[in-house]
Amino acid sequence: MSETLFDDTRGPLLDPLFANGWSMVEGRDAIEKHFKFKNFADAFGWMTRAAIWSEKWDHHPEWFNVYNKVHVILTTHSIDGLSALDAKLARKLDSL
Amino acid sequence: MSETLFDDTRGPLLDPLFANGWSMVEGRDAIEKHFKFKNFADAFGWMTRAAIWSEKWDHHPEWFNVYNKVHVILTTHSIDGLSALDAKLARKLDSL
Repeated sequence: MSETLFDDTRGPLLDPLFANGWSMVEGRDAIEKHFKFKNFADAFGWMTRAAIWSEKWDHHPEWFNVYNKVHVILTTHSIDGLSALDAKLARKLDSL
Repeated sequence: MSETLFDDTRGPLLDPLFANGWSMVEGRDAIEKHFKFKNFADAFGWMTRAAIWSEKWDHHPEWFNVYNKVHVILTTHSIDGLSALDAKLARKLDSL
């Protein structure tokens, strides 16, 4: 079961993401990032690799794609807020 | 080059789509449909097949996915409105 991030864990998990282009979603306990690729094939190829990790970890993004752009929002729906899984998936997305 | 749909071509191309769950997007010359699947793997599997057709036809959707749901918007960005390609891609998405 995922647990909400509390004050003592939020900083260490989220600050490195904020330094890497992630930000809080206005009005939600969620993080977001805009990814840009060379073209659609590159964008969707990246989404496909991300999808496999998402399914493997049973933790899925909210994401919007148009051509070479992908807007990703991460939150943990079961707790209606951020958990360590969101930080883990964000780090994976940055590494792909 | 894609051409805007005019009055005489809109009905024959769009009416069958409206009868199949598509609708106009408010404030845009674009069509949208909400697709729902059994789970994420089914939703993303469908998106992958759709992505291949999109790339083949060089005509890409705006789409939003969260878990088993996919919201698709189709329009032709080069003409800022609907073209016959949107109807063709919509029919393909319905058939996948």
